[in-house]
Amino acid sequence: MRIQTQLNCFREMLAPVLETNAFYRQKLTEARITDPNDVQTLDDYRQLPFTTKEELSVDQVSHPPYGTNLTFPLEQYTCLHRTSGTTGSPLRWLDTAESWDWWGRCWGEIYRGAGVTSVDRLMIAFSFGPFIGFWSAYHGAQQLGALTIPNGGMTSDQRIRAILSNDVTVLIATPTYALRLAEVAEQDGINLSEVSSVRVTIHAGEPGASLPATKQRIETRWGARAYDHAGATEVGAWGVMCEPQAGLHLNEDEFICEVLDPETDNPADEGELVITNLGRVGMPVIRYRTGDYVKLKSGACECGRESRVLDGGVIGRIDNALIIRGLNVYPATLENIILKFPEVQEFAGRVYGTGTLDELEIQIESTNPNPNETATAVAAAIRDELGLRAIVKTVPLGTLPRYELKSKRFTDERVS
Amino acid sequence: MRIQTQLNCFREMLAPVLETNAFYRQKLTEARITDPNDVQTLDDYRQLPFTTKEELSVDQVSHPPYGTNLTFPLEQYTCLHRTSGTTGSPLRWLDTAESWDWWGRCWGEIYRGAGVTSVDRLMIAFSFGPFIGFWSAYHGAQQLGALTIPNGGMTSDQRIRAILSNDVTVLIATPTYALRLAEVAEQDGINLSEVSSVRVTIHAGEPGASLPATKQRIETRWGARAYDHAGATEVGAWGVMCEPQAGLHLNEDEFICEVLDPETDNPADEGELVITNLGRVGMPVIRYRTGDYVKLKSGACECGRESRVLDGGVIGRIDNALIIRGLNVYPATLENIILKFPEVQEFAGRVYGTGTLDELEIQIESTNPNPNETATAVAAAIRDELGLRAIVKTVPLGTLPRYELKSKRFTDERVS
Repeated sequence: MRIQTQLNCFREMLAPVLETNAFYRQKLTEARITDPNDVQTLDDYRQLPFTTKEELSVDQVSHPPYGTNLTFPLEQYTCLHRTSGTTGSPLRWLDTAESWDWWGRCWGEIYRGAGVTSVDRLMIAFSFGPFIGFWSAYHGAQQLGALTIPNGGMTSDQRIRAILSNDVTVLIATPTYALRLAEVAEQDGINLSEVSSVRVTIHAGEPGASLPATKQRIETRWGARAYDHAGATEVGAWGVMCEPQAGLHLNEDEFICEVLDPETDNPADEGELVITNLGRVGMPVIRYRTGDYVKLKSGACECGRESRVLDGGVIGRIDNALIIRGLNVYPATLENIILKFPEVQEFAGRVYGTGTLDELEIQIESTNPNPNETATAVAAAIRDELGLRAIVKTVPLGTLPRYELKSKRFTDERVS
Repeated sequence: MRIQTQLNCFREMLAPVLETNAFYRQKLTEARITDPNDVQTLDDYRQLPFTTKEELSVDQVSHPPYGTNLTFPLEQYTCLHRTSGTTGSPLRWLDTAESWDWWGRCWGEIYRGAGVTSVDRLMIAFSFGPFIGFWSAYHGAQQLGALTIPNGGMTSDQRIRAILSNDVTVLIATPTYALRLAEVAEQDGINLSEVSSVRVTIHAGEPGASLPATKQRIETRWGARAYDHAGATEVGAWGVMCEPQAGLHLNEDEFICEVLDPETDNPADEGELVITNLGRVGMPVIRYRTGDYVKLKSGACECGRESRVLDGGVIGRIDNALIIRGLNVYPATLENIILKFPEVQEFAGRVYGTGTLDELEIQIESTNPNPNETATAVAAAIRDELGLRAIVKTVPLGTLPRYELKSKRFTDERVS
């Protein structure tokens, strides 16, 4: 039974955590867990308290700079990273050499899922700042033994030249930045789908690669197969896409995953993903509310993996649904509708109040010589698929912001 | 005998190199070396042909993208870096997992020399681009187990905040950028020598930290001890400064080092450093003319290391001496004279022909309320120490260029 193996791992981690990790010792003691053997069954496990990002954040603010969720003395940690601050103020997170190797192993699963081997040549296109996602991809690539091209401080043009001159076969980037690179190449008259050797792209940071419209756009522009992956600074890289690409596998060898109804906290087929990581003893999370909204797929995957699969990857963030005139709309859902129109180059959306009603306004760049045609079609598609009226306006090509890491295409201008 | 141990290592490397490395097999066969055992003695070793940067560059241009100095099939290499292009067009250089660990070990010596341990917290301040120096410092820090703060894509202000909020104790940067960070901090009213925990700085990329004036300036601004180190993309990190700081040790466990008279190629106390690296079987250099001008120190070092010591580190580049009216002047020598004046904030120099005579012009930024006083004093110091007339002009504070990686403070505008 998978759960027994997972709980064995969990109890092994619990021993040092209960002994020296101030944050979890207090939290678990309050829940009357004082011995690893207090957690024998899945039912025991489900009695454990949740961990929220807010708690972790408050702990770090009260005990700067790293908080009290530390199992070992500070000098045992070798890596520091920071959340991107997508939601709230950034969290700092520490890894030991062991837990960093565990991150690399989790990326090993992602590479295996996408058919990437030591023969491949990788570009992990980012600035090598404090964002853990791509640093861990880099460590995983080194463990795999694949050639990896360092590219911090490069412009998009320089990255494209490095991809071409080194015959890079795998691109790792946010969906937004993969499209941005293709756009820059096109402006230079370079059709990457023809001249580059990139055959696989792996994405993170945004749900894009699980959205059919965005995925197809990336695949067309790069002449490659786009793979999603999912993870979080405080959790690890928990989501793996396999070659049949029929959803996103949970990496249940390294994580205990639950999907819970956000209202009742009961197990559900659709709801919030709650995770315990099993390989990060130095700074773990236990029953962590990821805020990711997901949907379990039924039936076994044809790839042969026995782990459960999320249909459509991460559908949205529990906390970023835009509630517009009573309708619950995820930015990712809108993105998927808008990018089905190949003539849309870039877009941005805002929600604002007019006093009586909320309005959703979308700005689009369209390559259609008559861009208003596209605007009308996009508005119709949003109305048809969501039953939502949107004001769609056109702006000249190249005027909307482009992003290198995570995009921020939607703003909510309503007073809350 | 050290040389016997070195030659054992060398012969071990020679076996696969003679078998599968096209570049060196040809070069060595032409010199009638076809078997590792052909090199038994130091005299045999001294008969081996030199390798020049020009040769390597021509080889890469003729056999793009990586040339033929490759002992293993391409898929065995895991890291790619590039020379900074200080001299000539950039060289690409590949490492295997093994040779990359060897780089990390060489950095281990540099950290040990400077008294840096796993308890320290490091910031390796650079853009994480293709420059090998600081990437290898990063790998060495991970091997050491010291916490290392990723900082690609950060502004100088953000780096200063990260240094302060994480209690960083060791800064690794070019001398120029260490001074730049201190200058930015001062502009924000932050005195790093008082408020930062940095106690050691380690430098690379430029000779600065071996120049007494630059070294003292860094130490004063950071309230730390500044250590030099030396290395090159195609060679490795071969120079180690120990705590007595009485010069730069050659790492003779990992490199065979010769100092040769550039005119006669005979062993000398002062001349060009010629190096063979012993841990980089996949893409080695054998009797490589580094172009670094160095001077051996006599006598044993009080630190107890038995390796030889270079007096004043790398004094200059054989090929960057500015010949001004028949005088041979290294930019580093000028820097050392100019920066002895604490009121000089930044400087730049150019050499130009006036038709009959060459002129050296130096521009300085001085914090002296009467900057011309500084200019006169700098000109007098250059005349006194070098017997050279220079035109020294003042420019307003903050107008000369600042550099993040290698500085380019001198330009030669003469038609060659």
